[in-house]
Amino acid sequence: MKVAKLVGDRFKERPADCEIDSHALMLRGGYMRYVANGIYSLYTPLRRITRKIEQIIREEMDAIDGQEVLFPVVLPASLWEESGRYASVGSELLRFKDRNSIPLVFGMTHEEAAVQLVREYGQSYAKYPFMVYQIQTKFRDEARPRGGLIRAREFMMKDGYSFHTSQEDLQQYYYRCLHAYEKIFARTGIPEVISVASDSGMMGGNVSHEFILLTDVGEDSIAVCSECDYRANMEAAESIVQNEASEASKEIALVHTPDIHTIEDLSGFLNIPEEKSCKAVVYQKNSTDEYVVLFIRGDLDANETKLKNYLGEDIRPADITDGCGLNAGFIGPYNLKGDFIVLFDKSLKGSNNLACGGNIPDHHYTGLQLERDCGAIEYHDFAKIKAGGICPKCGKHTISISRGIEVGNIFQLGTKYSQAMNMQYLDKDGSSKYPVMGCYGIGIGRLAASVCEAHHDAYGPIWPMSIAPWQVHLCCIRSDNPEAKKSADELYEKLQSLNVEVIYDDRSVSTGVMFSDADLLGVPVRVIVSPRNMKENCLEITTRDKKISMKVSLDKAVEAITSLVSELTDEACSAK
Amino acid sequence: MKVAKLVGDRFKERPADCEIDSHALMLRGGYMRYVANGIYSLYTPLRRITRKIEQIIREEMDAIDGQEVLFPVVLPASLWEESGRYASVGSELLRFKDRNSIPLVFGMTHEEAAVQLVREYGQSYAKYPFMVYQIQTKFRDEARPRGGLIRAREFMMKDGYSFHTSQEDLQQYYYRCLHAYEKIFARTGIPEVISVASDSGMMGGNVSHEFILLTDVGEDSIAVCSECDYRANMEAAESIVQNEASEASKEIALVHTPDIHTIEDLSGFLNIPEEKSCKAVVYQKNSTDEYVVLFIRGDLDANETKLKNYLGEDIRPADITDGCGLNAGFIGPYNLKGDFIVLFDKSLKGSNNLACGGNIPDHHYTGLQLERDCGAIEYHDFAKIKAGGICPKCGKHTISISRGIEVGNIFQLGTKYSQAMNMQYLDKDGSSKYPVMGCYGIGIGRLAASVCEAHHDAYGPIWPMSIAPWQVHLCCIRSDNPEAKKSADELYEKLQSLNVEVIYDDRSVSTGVMFSDADLLGVPVRVIVSPRNMKENCLEITTRDKKISMKVSLDKAVEAITSLVSELTDEACSAK
Repeated sequence: MKVAKLVGDRFKERPADCEIDSHALMLRGGYMRYVANGIYSLYTPLRRITRKIEQIIREEMDAIDGQEVLFPVVLPASLWEESGRYASVGSELLRFKDRNSIPLVFGMTHEEAAVQLVREYGQSYAKYPFMVYQIQTKFRDEARPRGGLIRAREFMMKDGYSFHTSQEDLQQYYYRCLHAYEKIFARTGIPEVISVASDSGMMGGNVSHEFILLTDVGEDSIAVCSECDYRANMEAAESIVQNEASEASKEIALVHTPDIHTIEDLSGFLNIPEEKSCKAVVYQKNSTDEYVVLFIRGDLDANETKLKNYLGEDIRPADITDGCGLNAGFIGPYNLKGDFIVLFDKSLKGSNNLACGGNIPDHHYTGLQLERDCGAIEYHDFAKIKAGGICPKCGKHTISISRGIEVGNIFQLGTKYSQAMNMQYLDKDGSSKYPVMGCYGIGIGRLAASVCEAHHDAYGPIWPMSIAPWQVHLCCIRSDNPEAKKSADELYEKLQSLNVEVIYDDRSVSTGVMFSDADLLGVPVRVIVSPRNMKENCLEITTRDKKISMKVSLDKAVEAITSLVSELTDEACSAK
Repeated sequence: MKVAKLVGDRFKERPADCEIDSHALMLRGGYMRYVANGIYSLYTPLRRITRKIEQIIREEMDAIDGQEVLFPVVLPASLWEESGRYASVGSELLRFKDRNSIPLVFGMTHEEAAVQLVREYGQSYAKYPFMVYQIQTKFRDEARPRGGLIRAREFMMKDGYSFHTSQEDLQQYYYRCLHAYEKIFARTGIPEVISVASDSGMMGGNVSHEFILLTDVGEDSIAVCSECDYRANMEAAESIVQNEASEASKEIALVHTPDIHTIEDLSGFLNIPEEKSCKAVVYQKNSTDEYVVLFIRGDLDANETKLKNYLGEDIRPADITDGCGLNAGFIGPYNLKGDFIVLFDKSLKGSNNLACGGNIPDHHYTGLQLERDCGAIEYHDFAKIKAGGICPKCGKHTISISRGIEVGNIFQLGTKYSQAMNMQYLDKDGSSKYPVMGCYGIGIGRLAASVCEAHHDAYGPIWPMSIAPWQVHLCCIRSDNPEAKKSADELYEKLQSLNVEVIYDDRSVSTGVMFSDADLLGVPVRVIVSPRNMKENCLEITTRDKKISMKVSLDKAVEAITSLVSELTDEACSAK
């Protein structure tokens, strides 16, 4: 392929609406083009990258006995009604009707389709375990697409579904798949991806892991322990607090606190640490508008995901209306009257002498001791873990919060889908059972963007050999010089005949333009043929990461290039 | 891969709702599963077949300088409004809205997306010509999906779009692509596919070709000349008739023809050949309900496509209501009063003494001579070509009508899309011009089904080596026999280590079940290891098409198998 013929423009200016580097570089380098909000077309360089990623994933999925299939993009709504998700999933699920008014959905995940595909096949225990996967376009109608391919609405995804006759068998396979994922990320050039325990969200099931590339531009927050190997998504990380044995308990007392609405104000007004206050955070159930009042230690934040999981339904921050019985800014657990769902975070357990809302305007209580004043209380974990907090695994105050991009996820689904969709098999003993399922996803485009995010400089991406759009970028400086042009042409032919993937720049443009285009295309090995080099009967070989730069005599060029390509290929393949 | 682990069931009974063999065999062989009307999931064998087809297409597209890209499946309606197709395309185009009520469409073809992708890139003549293609899921909300993958609603397609600075350049590339298509069909095992001139339909443009696999189960009708190389889709084939110099013209006369409504009745009643009658065929415009009255020679049928193309809009068979001015069954061109669009097929030109409707109930005219009685008349080609008719190329009465499956199509689009979407380039002379476009499609699933249709017997598909799901089907008869099992296991390992694609059946099932499953999987080379063969220290090698059957001693087995595989591979690759 010649640069002169490569469809797509490259340009210097960072587009104004790009928050993150990979997004900007992929637009600047002619990798993709905006079509609509969260929807892109891919040009050839990126299509070549994604195909290589697909192939790596395929090999690793086949290596753990995965069988590639293809589910439809368009699914009948009836299938999603079987699982219950037609009603339960929000507006990320694109719903529409065909010419006969049959309701359909655009597949955003394929648990239902997977069960439908194997429901008859998997009727005997002898068929288990098995895993089917596909590489297919998906559409999630995200409220806020961002970062180019990092969070797109339409994207290419590998999704796999495994079926087992026991939780133990699922678990064994699950960790086999986890290791296959580690290999995939290593082979695509980001071995630094970590797996973290996560919340299963709408997938159902219990155990799940996200694969996270730690980077400041990521939108996921990860709790990481600096002392042990604990790491978890913020949404899933257990919050642990220790309430120090306090001074003797005081009496509960109503205090006039004019215009004191926030915990910060209250702490200053009463001259107490925020830990000694009991904060109210109020939500409403989406289904019934019912109020959910969560009490939590004043210095902590509520974790909405934990609340949703506990309630088993969606909630939103409350709209506290006049006459609803709640006094915004002055809500406390003592003497709270009204028909609300009241929950307590375990950060309040065992504390005393707390300040809290007085449930009448401009008043707070002091001296609250929940167990004494509010009767039998059930505590649950509803708080966000915080930096400097206690590690749930090693117990030290060693938690830090990092940001990251989720490049993959795996879930233990249990029998949620097999039960809902009545998929059963006959076990050895003749009894009917529901198979246990796991599911395994990787976003292809997001993975490409993540590699770019992890490997780039100011001038462009630095693609690892394993997924680079081409292996060698051949530059002919001064293609109007017949000698240089002839050498470069011959090299181009020769390398292609050896199955080296070459992109060849023989345009009559300045060296500056030629090199900045090469930087944007990010091909790992660059070969420079120029009249000056020709005089010395040699050419230059450099790598995009600038680690290698050498002059090689013309007669040894092909060998030097091919061996550098294999070296970098091996490096990428054997990573981790 | 072991048959014992292959997900998907195989069964003997032909499903009741399958009209054609490929559909039945692909269900019976565990290739695919019905999900919804015209929507299927593909199991591993078919996914392997389609991936091989995709790779062949990719290679041939790259060989004619195609660049693989990826367009979105979901496109903004605004893009289709630019081209005018949001309004003009019927309900095959799936239209829907996202969470923000933005209208979107499900891409059923990607001319708009292609122009959007290259509109800025192609601003200088120096960038031309170029061709971009993708392999992507499409959805067409067909009124009548049929034949499994032959006419599905969701399907995988390769679609390419080329851009040129002149019609000559387009034409040159168009025929290059036509030859690439011939290579693709040859390589996938159906070199007998013919290219036929066709109607461009909603694509616009003038010249187009369909690639047709002739088969009685096809839904397209093709006019083929037995004397020359003329072949054309019925919709596009020119109808040529010669009206013999007739007897002397008679006077026009009104005749009482009670209860004579059809041309057949009239011909019998008046004792004249149908050729001597002038038939009326009535349509209505979809847009305005206006009546369109077509007069055509009594023995011929109207070609709706030609009528639509002439009128430039959609029509439907008329609903002739009381008081509309038309007397159903008695409509003729003489004394026809009313505000209708009246058209004449050229089959009527030069004829005389015709019988036609009298425009009053129960009456016909005889002795009609159009030019004499109806004034200046413009004749156009609105008739269907018929079997035994005149070949438009060689002029002999040598036309026959065959049925076929359309496995691909190519179109010369002209500047329809570049003009509508205002894509322009600066030419050498500094003037702004619209590029000329071509587009090129192949349905992947339909191609797979067509190969099956062309190559199968009563027991299953007979896949050509080039696209077979596996190359070798290894059967171990009596896997409970340790010697046989050991030999087969070793052979399985050995062949895999040589990168031969093997499906291995080591189940303890009867030979009958094993072979009928193998027939359904249609793998070209079958290797049979059995206790009986072991006694002779040999194994059996046969081909699925039954052309080869041989016994080979165990120590020569690997060599015999691999050389047979290469032989059949070469055969497929060098086809045509």
